[in-house]
Amino acid sequence: MLINCVAYQEGRKLAHIGLDEIAGYLAKPQCFVWLALCDATEEELRRAQREFDLHELAVEDVLHGHQRPKSEEYDDTLFVTLHTLERGADDALEIGDVSIFAGPNFVVSVRNRSQQSFLSVRQRAEREPQALREGPGFVLYALLDASVDRYFPTIEAFETDLETIEEKIFTPGAARANTQQLYELKQRIMLARHAVAPLQEAVGKLWGGRVPPVCAAHSDYMRDVYDHLTRINASLDTLREMIVMAIQVNLSMVTIEESETTKRLAAWAGIFAVATALAGIWGMNFEGMPELKWHYGYPAALGLIFLACLLLYRRFKRVGWL
Amino acid sequence: MLINCVAYQEGRKLAHIGLDEIAGYLAKPQCFVWLALCDATEEELRRAQREFDLHELAVEDVLHGHQRPKSEEYDDTLFVTLHTLERGADDALEIGDVSIFAGPNFVVSVRNRSQQSFLSVRQRAEREPQALREGPGFVLYALLDASVDRYFPTIEAFETDLETIEEKIFTPGAARANTQQLYELKQRIMLARHAVAPLQEAVGKLWGGRVPPVCAAHSDYMRDVYDHLTRINASLDTLREMIVMAIQVNLSMVTIEESETTKRLAAWAGIFAVATALAGIWGMNFEGMPELKWHYGYPAALGLIFLACLLLYRRFKRVGWL
Amino acid sequence: MLINCVAYQEGRKLAHIGLDEIAGYLAKPQCFVWLALCDATEEELRRAQREFDLHELAVEDVLHGHQRPKSEEYDDTLFVTLHTLERGADDALEIGDVSIFAGPNFVVSVRNRSQQSFLSVRQRAEREPQALREGPGFVLYALLDASVDRYFPTIEAFETDLETIEEKIFTPGAARANTQQLYELKQRIMLARHAVAPLQEAVGKLWGGRVPPVCAAHSDYMRDVYDHLTRINASLDTLREMIVMAIQVNLSMVTIEESETTKRLAAWAGIFAVATALAGIWGMNFEGMPELKWHYGYPAALGLIFLACLLLYRRFKRVGWL
Amino acid sequence: MLINCVAYQEGRKLAHIGLDEIAGYLAKPQCFVWLALCDATEEELRRAQREFDLHELAVEDVLHGHQRPKSEEYDDTLFVTLHTLERGADDALEIGDVSIFAGPNFVVSVRNRSQQSFLSVRQRAEREPQALREGPGFVLYALLDASVDRYFPTIEAFETDLETIEEKIFTPGAARANTQQLYELKQRIMLARHAVAPLQEAVGKLWGGRVPPVCAAHSDYMRDVYDHLTRINASLDTLREMIVMAIQVNLSMVTIEESETTKRLAAWAGIFAVATALAGIWGMNFEGMPELKWHYGYPAALGLIFLACLLLYRRFKRVGWL
Amino acid sequence: MLINCVAYQEGRKLAHIGLDEIAGYLAKPQCFVWLALCDATEEELRRAQREFDLHELAVEDVLHGHQRPKSEEYDDTLFVTLHTLERGADDALEIGDVSIFAGPNFVVSVRNRSQQSFLSVRQRAEREPQALREGPGFVLYALLDASVDRYFPTIEAFETDLETIEEKIFTPGAARANTQQLYELKQRIMLARHAVAPLQEAVGKLWGGRVPPVCAAHSDYMRDVYDHLTRINASLDTLREMIVMAIQVNLSMVTIEESETTKRLAAWAGIFAVATALAGIWGMNFEGMPELKWHYGYPAALGLIFLACLLLYRRFKRVGWL
Repeated sequence: MLINCVAYQEGRKLAHIGLDEIAGYLAKPQCFVWLALCDATEEELRRAQREFDLHELAVEDVLHGHQRPKSEEYDDTLFVTLHTLERGADDALEIGDVSIFAGPNFVVSVRNRSQQSFLSVRQRAEREPQALREGPGFVLYALLDASVDRYFPTIEAFETDLETIEEKIFTPGAARANTQQLYELKQRIMLARHAVAPLQEAVGKLWGGRVPPVCAAHSDYMRDVYDHLTRINASLDTLREMIVMAIQVNLSMVTIEESETTKRLAAWAGIFAVATALAGIWGMNFEGMPELKWHYGYPAALGLIFLACLLLYRRFKRVGWL
Repeated sequence: MLINCVAYQEGRKLAHIGLDEIAGYLAKPQCFVWLALCDATEEELRRAQREFDLHELAVEDVLHGHQRPKSEEYDDTLFVTLHTLERGADDALEIGDVSIFAGPNFVVSVRNRSQQSFLSVRQRAEREPQALREGPGFVLYALLDASVDRYFPTIEAFETDLETIEEKIFTPGAARANTQQLYELKQRIMLARHAVAPLQEAVGKLWGGRVPPVCAAHSDYMRDVYDHLTRINASLDTLREMIVMAIQVNLSMVTIEESETTKRLAAWAGIFAVATALAGIWGMNFEGMPELKWHYGYPAALGLIFLACLLLYRRFKRVGWL
Repeated sequence: MLINCVAYQEGRKLAHIGLDEIAGYLAKPQCFVWLALCDATEEELRRAQREFDLHELAVEDVLHGHQRPKSEEYDDTLFVTLHTLERGADDALEIGDVSIFAGPNFVVSVRNRSQQSFLSVRQRAEREPQALREGPGFVLYALLDASVDRYFPTIEAFETDLETIEEKIFTPGAARANTQQLYELKQRIMLARHAVAPLQEAVGKLWGGRVPPVCAAHSDYMRDVYDHLTRINASLDTLREMIVMAIQVNLSMVTIEESETTKRLAAWAGIFAVATALAGIWGMNFEGMPELKWHYGYPAALGLIFLACLLLYRRFKRVGWL
Repeated sequence: MLINCVAYQEGRKLAHIGLDEIAGYLAKPQCFVWLALCDATEEELRRAQREFDLHELAVEDVLHGHQRPKSEEYDDTLFVTLHTLERGADDALEIGDVSIFAGPNFVVSVRNRSQQSFLSVRQRAEREPQALREGPGFVLYALLDASVDRYFPTIEAFETDLETIEEKIFTPGAARANTQQLYELKQRIMLARHAVAPLQEAVGKLWGGRVPPVCAAHSDYMRDVYDHLTRINASLDTLREMIVMAIQVNLSMVTIEESETTKRLAAWAGIFAVATALAGIWGMNFEGMPELKWHYGYPAALGLIFLACLLLYRRFKRVGWL
Repeated sequence: MLINCVAYQEGRKLAHIGLDEIAGYLAKPQCFVWLALCDATEEELRRAQREFDLHELAVEDVLHGHQRPKSEEYDDTLFVTLHTLERGADDALEIGDVSIFAGPNFVVSVRNRSQQSFLSVRQRAEREPQALREGPGFVLYALLDASVDRYFPTIEAFETDLETIEEKIFTPGAARANTQQLYELKQRIMLARHAVAPLQEAVGKLWGGRVPPVCAAHSDYMRDVYDHLTRINASLDTLREMIVMAIQVNLSMVTIEESETTKRLAAWAGIFAVATALAGIWGMNFEGMPELKWHYGYPAALGLIFLACLLLYRRFKRVGWL
């Protein structure tokens, strides 16, 4: 679906143009075209390929989708593809693709399977004519910056999830649910890592050292995006490490709890075993058991049993088994 | 076994040729020969060695088989060897070898212990004369691309296997089978890693920086193959990490389940211990036990025992032990 | 909040100056201005930005706070941002920011959400005119050095915390508290790592090889700061490794303790089971049980039961179950 | 012990020579001397040092033995030392040393504490005069190649050991022996790693980039040795990873088995507890227990007890506890 | 404390000199001064600083002590600091410092909190005038070599400790002590790593590539020291890995042992439960229990109980529970 296609000159919007007019505007000096597609059909992509002379391999990557995030140069066109992360139903993570072609005088952005519109990016860019004057490089930066900024809420949601689980780890009885939630959180984090880690590597090629010509003037900005990705990556690494720890701690708590249960079981079993053994002894059928004939024999026996149990109970209480 | 041997000139197939004619066609300008062998005998390989002047060490590697995937240059001939992964009976992974010699005017591909034919690669290449005109480099790319693409179903099968196990992890009672399946999956993944990781390294030498002359014109294509391998490798790493996690989680679930069993056991043991102790007390042979002679003594005793058990039962129910 | 703003010339303090006078002093030769802000408002920062021509991205980083520690060059101005670590209530770690802009003739230091004043740094610098004469580079070093030195007490507190827990690991009964404390310590250490590891990387860019001009004359000093960070980082790594080990050891101790409890339980259960079984046998109602009618039958039975229990008790004692 | 000392010229054996004749042959053009020692005494080594002008530090390394595998250049002499791995009694791994000095016109090989003779290497070299003509570099390659090839059986023995243990992991009752064998296998693998990993690094210096002059003509061959070491190293890494996994899985299986035992114990305890409790109730001495006087009271009671036990038994059977 | 201060010329000892004479001897050609301090006071260090023009930061490092091992160049003086490891009371590891300043015509060695004297190093150096003639570089090497050689006994003590624990791991009952000893061994190994790993890095800067001028003539020797450190580091890594494994295996053995205890408990509980249940049944007060009146009823009952127990006992024996 074509979202819009606009021609810019010296930072100002010239016109919304049709696909047929692209070639004409590309020929004008100081002018560049920004085409935005969403859930693009093969036909639309092939049309854009012809208009902007995009490389076959890059276009195929967009068509197949689910590529690893990367930045690749094909002659003077830079191709960047990245994942979007959206929180769908049931906290499941939904992965979409954003692909950007940035040439000397055009930008093509393709957004597939993602709800996140880039309209705000275009508006922001059009409000800053002095930046937009710098051409496709700035648009590329603005798109990358917006995409990366949208990772933060996802990462924060992960952190909130982990904190919620952490609070329950030291509460008895939630071990089963905790384990399952930690495992699912780990799965979501692995998905996010597949989006972030290769993108960091890809953006790292856009500043410092030899840089694609289209980004040459925006090293400081690309470094800023890179820096955000480094921060996100560090957060993901910490999350991974804490989840491994949390799983271990959770298992520890289960073992500790079981150990306490075993002790309590042992204590009560001991108390009743004493009562049963004593009752069993006085239930024997020997003839010469004088205490059976005593007047207060029964209450004394009951008392003795009770006393033995009480003593045991207090002893277990003292050592912390009950 | 010789599959076929074809001479090409300027992207068009000249003829199916016999081994005797090879030397003649190699001498023609703009012409190259593509020889395909399958489960090659030593005799066939030695013949090919003589015809194309292949390096002794590389030929020995093909003969011995089970080499680590690698790309090596011997003078102007590039030697690439890689593993094929096929799912055999019982989900076992079967490893085959594909070895490719790519020289200035020939390609020799040897496929050993593998069912996967490269006929489709040859057909695709012959349908694209403009690509085939570029010579052995393109054929090498097409063979690598096809081989790497064939890894994807294997990786997806691993992912499906893991998902199947994951679903069972949180179902009680499947721990033993889960553990065994996770271990076997891990073994298969290690085999796959031995195929993929060194191949990624090997393909990495075929683009960017200094490149063997035979691939010089196909850097973009080799980068694409490399990119696929990076993706596969990342998937394998995630699988490894998730399996380690799954084993841990599985152990956690067993421990949690055992803890719950212990509690249930403790609860029922307690209930019966109370009944037994009470019955034991009234089974004592003391003389002065007035309640034994009461009219409703027995039903009252039964009631009391039942009541005590019921109270315990409800209490255990409330704390979640039953 | 503006802490103070002082102009220096050839190592001597010229005057406390107002914000309006900055431009004048910046124009003087051999003169530099050191502005210190604390919990700066946006207005103050924007003013400083105008006076010293600070880069937009760096100023935004200061405004947003919670940046990853880093050192970045914007033209001839070096921007360094780092975290402060303070121990708040409940041993929680409080993270603040310190940002430093060092240009050819000015230093701006901004301290946010931190109690640690840099007054002592200024006093020390003013006491050493020969060092201060070297300009903003020395001030930058002094600020970094003071900030890094303030990490040491935090790291030592971590080490004391770990030692306190370690002492309790081999004491029975503290497993639950140990686990929780180890987990919390791990969380604090992860926070500290986020402060230290990226800062080490950032300071690493300030000495050796190509260096920002403002630090060019202070490589030996920057290397000293770097060295301290390496030491802190190594301590944090050791702490991490020991915590992982401690969690494992703690779990081992719980399992060992449980195993001992199980054995003791088994021993006492066995002893009482023998008494109960024997009593049960003599409680049977068979007619032909001659021992029931013996004169010393009852004491003999009691003695036998006691003897059996005693033998078992001693046996269990000998094998270490009791 | 001197094994043999032979002078070669242009690939052909000139003569078995005495130590006194070495200097004479070294002076001849196109001639080189290959001295082989075994469990060399200090005297023999010092003699060789004088004859071939070997470096003091290298000779001391040979004398002390137990060096880390390495390749070092001393002027125009290359010194390579490596470990031999032999399977001794009780599957213990026996470590020996092989040290090789390769100069422009001599090779000295010293084999200590190893049964593996290099006679076959010399025979093979003498059968290939065209290769031997290339001088000490080829002899060095042949010795390295033979040494590295001898690692393969050891690695395969490790793999067989692991497979043997793996088969037993999922068989109940072998956990103790499995754990011990896995631990011992791990120890042997660590020993092998100390032999292989540094040797890979050492051989890596003998091809590609700047290379010691004595190997300059044999890069392809050294790369082949390097490749074998890479393969061995990858196998060792896999073995390590699988052992860690196997230990975990083994522990899981013990826990699962224990869990099953606990359940079975719980089931039988429950069944007998019911029987005992019921028997206890009818063993009470109340007067008004009409069922005691019924004609079929006793068989009915036995039947009831049996029925209750049977019901429980079938229930436990159904849920898989028995 | 000043140990001694000696001037050397062309490899021969000139004289023991006082601190006042240093400046005079430094001025002589081909002459160098070697000053050795032990537990140096600030005054002594400051004096040495003035005599040899040592850098302020390096001297402060010596004064503060507990530095990370490192080698740093200050102009033409090389500063190396390292840790000594000594086994104190209770196997605790005691850490001392050795700091060495090596300039063009002097060596200052400072040894703090260490019992290990360097007298033997001086004697060895003075016995080898041809080596000592090479000046401060050789003295630096001799001091480093002696310090590193003194690590070996510590590492061997660690290995012996681990072996002692390993032997006990597979003996039942020692789990608690093993765990504690493994943890303490781990702590000592971490301390040793802090001494060895940074020193390896530091020595790595003293050979190969660009080297401080004072070591330029001793690359082969420094490589030898580096090699020893690599070997020590590899041993420490192996120790760490084996300790982690040993902790795991130890936990496995505890779990296995507990599992065996549980089975034995289950077996005996089962046997006594059968006896008690049977006795309970014949203890019931039903009237129509004919077997109670049989002449051999009682012995038959006892026999039956015994038989049932025996059968169970043999069954449990057969499955290995007893």
